[in-house]
Amino acid sequence: MKNSIGREIPESVINGLELYQGPFAKNGEVKKAAPKVKPAKPGESKLVSSIEEAIVKCGLRDGMTISFHHHFREGDYILNMVVDAIAKLGIKNLTLASSSLGSVHSPLVKHIKNGVITKITTSGLRGALAEEISRGLMNEPVIIRSHGGRARAIEAGDIKIDLAFLGASSSDEYGNASGARGKAICGSLGYARVDADYADKVVIITDTLVDFPNVPASIPQTKVDYVVRVDEIGNPSGIASGATRFTKNPKELLIAEYASRVIIESGYFKDGFSFQTGSGGSALAVSRFLRNEMIKQGITASFALGGITKPMVEMLEEGLIKNLFDVQSFDLVAADSISRNERHHEIDASFYANPHNRGCIANNLDVVILSALEIDTDFNINVMTGSDGVMRGASGGHCDTAAGAKLTVIVAPLIRGRIPTVVDSVNTVITPGETIDVLVTDHGIAVNPRRTDLIERFMNVSIPVYTIEQLKERAESIVGKPDPIEYEDQVVGIVEYRDGTIIDVVRKVK
Amino acid sequence: MKNSIGREIPESVINGLELYQGPFAKNGEVKKAAPKVKPAKPGESKLVSSIEEAIVKCGLRDGMTISFHHHFREGDYILNMVVDAIAKLGIKNLTLASSSLGSVHSPLVKHIKNGVITKITTSGLRGALAEEISRGLMNEPVIIRSHGGRARAIEAGDIKIDLAFLGASSSDEYGNASGARGKAICGSLGYARVDADYADKVVIITDTLVDFPNVPASIPQTKVDYVVRVDEIGNPSGIASGATRFTKNPKELLIAEYASRVIIESGYFKDGFSFQTGSGGSALAVSRFLRNEMIKQGITASFALGGITKPMVEMLEEGLIKNLFDVQSFDLVAADSISRNERHHEIDASFYANPHNRGCIANNLDVVILSALEIDTDFNINVMTGSDGVMRGASGGHCDTAAGAKLTVIVAPLIRGRIPTVVDSVNTVITPGETIDVLVTDHGIAVNPRRTDLIERFMNVSIPVYTIEQLKERAESIVGKPDPIEYEDQVVGIVEYRDGTIIDVVRKVK
Repeated sequence: MKNSIGREIPESVINGLELYQGPFAKNGEVKKAAPKVKPAKPGESKLVSSIEEAIVKCGLRDGMTISFHHHFREGDYILNMVVDAIAKLGIKNLTLASSSLGSVHSPLVKHIKNGVITKITTSGLRGALAEEISRGLMNEPVIIRSHGGRARAIEAGDIKIDLAFLGASSSDEYGNASGARGKAICGSLGYARVDADYADKVVIITDTLVDFPNVPASIPQTKVDYVVRVDEIGNPSGIASGATRFTKNPKELLIAEYASRVIIESGYFKDGFSFQTGSGGSALAVSRFLRNEMIKQGITASFALGGITKPMVEMLEEGLIKNLFDVQSFDLVAADSISRNERHHEIDASFYANPHNRGCIANNLDVVILSALEIDTDFNINVMTGSDGVMRGASGGHCDTAAGAKLTVIVAPLIRGRIPTVVDSVNTVITPGETIDVLVTDHGIAVNPRRTDLIERFMNVSIPVYTIEQLKERAESIVGKPDPIEYEDQVVGIVEYRDGTIIDVVRKVK
Repeated sequence: MKNSIGREIPESVINGLELYQGPFAKNGEVKKAAPKVKPAKPGESKLVSSIEEAIVKCGLRDGMTISFHHHFREGDYILNMVVDAIAKLGIKNLTLASSSLGSVHSPLVKHIKNGVITKITTSGLRGALAEEISRGLMNEPVIIRSHGGRARAIEAGDIKIDLAFLGASSSDEYGNASGARGKAICGSLGYARVDADYADKVVIITDTLVDFPNVPASIPQTKVDYVVRVDEIGNPSGIASGATRFTKNPKELLIAEYASRVIIESGYFKDGFSFQTGSGGSALAVSRFLRNEMIKQGITASFALGGITKPMVEMLEEGLIKNLFDVQSFDLVAADSISRNERHHEIDASFYANPHNRGCIANNLDVVILSALEIDTDFNINVMTGSDGVMRGASGGHCDTAAGAKLTVIVAPLIRGRIPTVVDSVNTVITPGETIDVLVTDHGIAVNPRRTDLIERFMNVSIPVYTIEQLKERAESIVGKPDPIEYEDQVVGIVEYRDGTIIDVVRKVK
């Protein structure tokens, strides 16, 4: 069966899900999930002495669903510690509902082989785990969800979390937990907060117990069943780099310059505008160009959103941005700012990007700058699978912000390592082309033909403007057309659009 | 049928509810309610031009449940405006689930008579409405719930709110709403936040529309369907008095002095302790005595809780209290402080006192000081019905904090207007005696015999210590035993304990 953007979805994987039909096709009334809660009486202690004890007290059994957040990124010790403990207890056949997974989680390969983990849903997959899954490690396909889509799925009960293990850089004994204070800070705990709202059992794991009350708390005591202190929750240097540096790569700088011209001339760049940039080289450089233009024109932004980086914090502190909404702090400067700047607001993943609440803040974005591994002539975007078909990326907030923002700008080099970025058809669709407005490459830009208003605006701007087909041909004329990736029939990944429909599948590479 | 404290509950009113069996008898796993949500797409406006339009767009129909908060207290314009608009639209037979009701809501008498409102649940009732209901105005008894009990009932689905009308002193057009900024500020919107979390439809009513984003928000955009601007949401002088003044009444001062001695000698008064005082004359004076002793002994409080007043804010600013948790700001100083002091935290009613989450902060209280209209020799407390049997009070957080705190101190004059406060059996039980530790009167104190530890502690303290029977006899010896109130059989009010069981009923006065 084919969905509305023509992706072939094998019937065998549909399993009650619907096929993607358009970015807002599925917008009817929804009913929230109803978590179970065991009340805590005054005087009862929540502190337990080990992860094992927490697992046992929470009643984890074969077949249940466990969850984790990825705010500690490549410095995370928690997921591996917990899954090791579960394996030792002999519990099997679990669904792992992590907000994302990285290279640090390669020990999961062992726990998939030994039957502890049999299903996974995540935003991203990288490293050995991603490699093995792409080559058919699991019987059940991984479900790839965006950050907003995961929040939606949890709130709708599509992901029913039995037990959430949530790392926090500090907590008091009653479970008031923070990511912004302690030894191994990560800043915002935005993804974890949804788990705490909807899981039947919630365990806080920290290496820094502090006096009651540990406030402001990312996760409040009212959501927490147990608290465990361990020696170390993570490696701070893997959690957040010291500070993001600006690129000196001339190709990235050129893309950034074009992208900022696109934004400045788009009609959306005016006092009170709002924007999100990612953490890639070009995206960060865009924020520097925008900053200069904002000073020149005397305009300020009402808010910036997303994964927050040092340049955003600086613009907040300069008064150029009035509010930062932070679902994930990308560097130590951002992680530290959240408890220091009162206009730097921690938000949860539902507030960020859930399409099925009464209006996530992605809806209020004027401009978003996003990257791409591939873009096709329908403007569909792949940020998940590499040129060898192996998963090595993350859905993230890509399709969420693209759907919400008034102007979605994709920044990418036309060619990456002798491989064209603009292609006839992307390996994997994460974000549908109908939500993309402009592609910016180092060779020039292409505007989605749906945006006739923008095409007109850019007619007299000194950026090279092409059709996307022209950009594709240009790329092919330089490096030729790569051989198609050879896949087998087995589906190793299902890509859900943010509304829970199937937008694409990932097949096993040969 | 009788409940565990011997109150007679007519079978006709039980209607599927359980009878009270003890403060923590009902403590098993609960399942949260599942609200319905209509997603908001980017670009859709939430602003509607009138309350009528909001009512129509939300699809309010006969028989539904509407809710309001009482943070505007006697200055509230919103409830009357909305119920008038509903009446004009011809909608009938509604359940009114207000967090509390005051004298300002006497127009409801008309809307009960005309069939618009047929059921009520509230924490308090005062003025003409209370008088009429006490004399049999309604066919269905009013359900009296504590603040924690209301949060529990909403989260459990016992109160299913179809449409919440939530006043806010400022909001942006997308529904980010605040009680702490604008023309008619009330500070915390703690009671309203639970409604926003669980109602199927949420309307923000404000007189001050501000630029997006109006943050920090008490109620976030993700919970709001529509926003209405009206000319005035309330009378600021009725919302919050300028500042609470200390009593000069010698009887109240004597009670306060005894109460502070009780607290200081209780063993709970030590560095890092926590407390809640009310807003009554004696309670406020207690905080002044405690302040002096804290300075003298060089100790600080980890937090103060509750309805927050100017003296609490001053102690926060002096560094004597490290955190204020504010579910309701009792005066303008407190209402203003919440956006000025970063350690002055707005909390919702569930975090405050819901017995069925994973640990409300009432559980963490060391000391609470509470008032009483009556207390009986079983230490049961009445804060609801006057000496004529008419309702003129509020359940509030009384039974919630009494159950949570390690030391619950009741302050009351032994005699009030020629009527004894200490009696054989109170007219109406709001808080069960098993959660009360010490009664402090102007004649001396009585300790609950369950607290042998405290009796021992107070043996060598220079406060007159009596048994509660002795205090009762002393009161009667001065003013005699009053004639019993004459009631009819009709039940006009059902008093729910915080766990949802029936602790008492209020009968129609003759």
